[in-house]
Amino acid sequence: MDFRTQAEAARTASRQLATLTRDAKDSALGAMADALAAAEPDLLAANERDVATAQGEGISGSLIDRLRLDRSRVAGMVQGLRDVAALADPVGDAVRGWRLGNGVEVRQVRVPFGVVGIIYESRPNVTADAAGLCLKSGNAALLRGSSTAIESNKVTIAALRSGLERSGIDVNAVSLVEGDRSVTSEMMTARGLVDVLIPRGGAGLINAVVEGSKVPVIETGTGNCHLFVDASADHEKALKILVNAKVQRPGVCNAVETLLVHRDTAPEFLPKALHALTEAGVTMHGTPEVCGFSASVVPAGEDEFDAEYLSLDIAVTVVGDLAEAIDHIRAHTTGHSETIVTESRANADRFVAEIDAAAVLVNASSRFIDGGEFGFGAEIGISTQKLHARGPMGLTELTSSKYILSGEGQIRG
Amino acid sequence: MDFRTQAEAARTASRQLATLTRDAKDSALGAMADALAAAEPDLLAANERDVATAQGEGISGSLIDRLRLDRSRVAGMVQGLRDVAALADPVGDAVRGWRLGNGVEVRQVRVPFGVVGIIYESRPNVTADAAGLCLKSGNAALLRGSSTAIESNKVTIAALRSGLERSGIDVNAVSLVEGDRSVTSEMMTARGLVDVLIPRGGAGLINAVVEGSKVPVIETGTGNCHLFVDASADHEKALKILVNAKVQRPGVCNAVETLLVHRDTAPEFLPKALHALTEAGVTMHGTPEVCGFSASVVPAGEDEFDAEYLSLDIAVTVVGDLAEAIDHIRAHTTGHSETIVTESRANADRFVAEIDAAAVLVNASSRFIDGGEFGFGAEIGISTQKLHARGPMGLTELTSSKYILSGEGQIRG
Repeated sequence: MDFRTQAEAARTASRQLATLTRDAKDSALGAMADALAAAEPDLLAANERDVATAQGEGISGSLIDRLRLDRSRVAGMVQGLRDVAALADPVGDAVRGWRLGNGVEVRQVRVPFGVVGIIYESRPNVTADAAGLCLKSGNAALLRGSSTAIESNKVTIAALRSGLERSGIDVNAVSLVEGDRSVTSEMMTARGLVDVLIPRGGAGLINAVVEGSKVPVIETGTGNCHLFVDASADHEKALKILVNAKVQRPGVCNAVETLLVHRDTAPEFLPKALHALTEAGVTMHGTPEVCGFSASVVPAGEDEFDAEYLSLDIAVTVVGDLAEAIDHIRAHTTGHSETIVTESRANADRFVAEIDAAAVLVNASSRFIDGGEFGFGAEIGISTQKLHARGPMGLTELTSSKYILSGEGQIRG
Repeated sequence: MDFRTQAEAARTASRQLATLTRDAKDSALGAMADALAAAEPDLLAANERDVATAQGEGISGSLIDRLRLDRSRVAGMVQGLRDVAALADPVGDAVRGWRLGNGVEVRQVRVPFGVVGIIYESRPNVTADAAGLCLKSGNAALLRGSSTAIESNKVTIAALRSGLERSGIDVNAVSLVEGDRSVTSEMMTARGLVDVLIPRGGAGLINAVVEGSKVPVIETGTGNCHLFVDASADHEKALKILVNAKVQRPGVCNAVETLLVHRDTAPEFLPKALHALTEAGVTMHGTPEVCGFSASVVPAGEDEFDAEYLSLDIAVTVVGDLAEAIDHIRAHTTGHSETIVTESRANADRFVAEIDAAAVLVNASSRFIDGGEFGFGAEIGISTQKLHARGPMGLTELTSSKYILSGEGQIRG
């Protein structure tokens, strides 16, 4: 099936989805979960073929790890669908409402986008997650996964569609977009066929979609997150937050990548920080001033302050004051999550007011900037753009709105 | 000043704007209004030069009309700034807030976008309107007006900036983007410098910006609005709404462009509609079936059902039932405002549920789909996209949001 035909079928399916009750959607999610659970042996076999092909192509260890499914990961995919069923349905929620002077009733209500395109990399669990979130929010999903995961994705989609079919829902509510790179371009230029595109993956993928798309895009993910330890910081809190934000899961976008330390507290704080990070297996990449505090700090290149390491590494610098910290963050931020550790209310307020990011934290770990932690259930990504959604995106962020005006023949004077 | 320097200056100004109190912004809007009122003679003289140049270039009457300022239009621009001062400030409004299980406080608050680029056509009043709305919402404005209005725009911007200066606000909060077409391309590719682009004008301009921009765009405006007269419609209401929606101001995007009439009521309704429209100076462009009702209906070409006439013309067709009306609208809608006139609750509900548009109306004129009518004060446009804002956009729609997390050293387990 060519992409246009597939997208038109998704559009048709989206009309049914838009008017489904929550009960109908939740019951379909249950059927999809059941079908996926039943397909486990097929899915694991298909995934083995994907992994073998990837290994044959010399693909690296961490990519193979993301690609590989086991029984526990499949169980996670199945449970993810059931968890989405348990979440509230945003469709039909009233955003606001009022009456015009002449009595016309105005209501703004949440409605699905229609057709959502998701372009993502090798993790095959995204296929089930994204399908579930789109279905629950009343959107048809066009899923463009990586060719690396094609066998796993095909089995997953077939199972999900059989669950839809059993629930009396148009199976084109969820489809896998196959084909070579030209299909990705077709998705990005399909104005009127695709309502929103969401890229999920590394910076390269996201930039390519943001730069190339004529369809509205929600930009997700890159996080060069900073942690500023102010002069007044409680060192115990600062160390706990630093280690947690760097080490708890270094490969994700809300992990901290740069540490800024106020010069007044650096002589006392930096040796402790270095010790704690070294214990946790982290390498500090410091400016010459930071290197002066210990021989075990590696000298950092200037461009390391723009790096998203996604590993057990952290760039470190010393700043003269809060203003200098804010300036540094402004120059290097990706607008994801920025943290201050301080006991000064004035400095906390100024940091919060002046830092322009999806999330600003005071005395808490940036690892909390996450849909699951926020109570959104599964998340479709973390938006780092300012339009539509900013920060963790749950079901509500997968909806648009519609004004409904109801009158008795009123006209404009 | 080249565009990049100008955009960076706007970014710097946006940092001051983001933290201004409502009082400071309202007082600046007052000073801008005063300065613009004082500049009236200069502005009218500059506008005369623009009009003379345009006439010399053989530009048509309706464009000249949009370009021309008189004392009453200038007074409208001045009053517009004062009206914006009277509107509530959306910045800092809490969108939602809760506590995580571990006590971390989460707040989502409205913040300005930062730098908003507006690309618009010849109406010089947009310059003051857009500057006022951006200032009140805490955004720096990069205003790319038409070269046709360049002299008028320069005088307007100079007056607005003198008002800003007198209020102690960075004058780069408002700037006019000058230069040839390549500057428009620079605006559209200025990711990171411009947060949002809003095109205001005809379909050609809007499409060019939506297709060409790498910066997030809010698509505004084109309205091929339909009015469906159902079998059960009250003819008196239907005629009143039809004439109002077509005639009250035919050149705007919320005017009705296509009339669909249920076949069961066509023999009775169409002659009355034709009479009322003819009285109002409107030409009906009908399908052969519609032409059968009267010799004075002009035969419509199929592509007329995709036309936004923006004039005293209307395309007319007869449909067999509600489903056919919905199918026709789906095939031709621009997603702006769609109306049903019906006395059937079931048909009203089905129309509202199944029509995918920024606004759906039951028994009311589509002319109400307007920021002013909605009580938003001045509007920056009517969004016909689904991302971020849909329908009339007021000050709230010119903001993004930011999550603020406040803790006492909490870390993720």
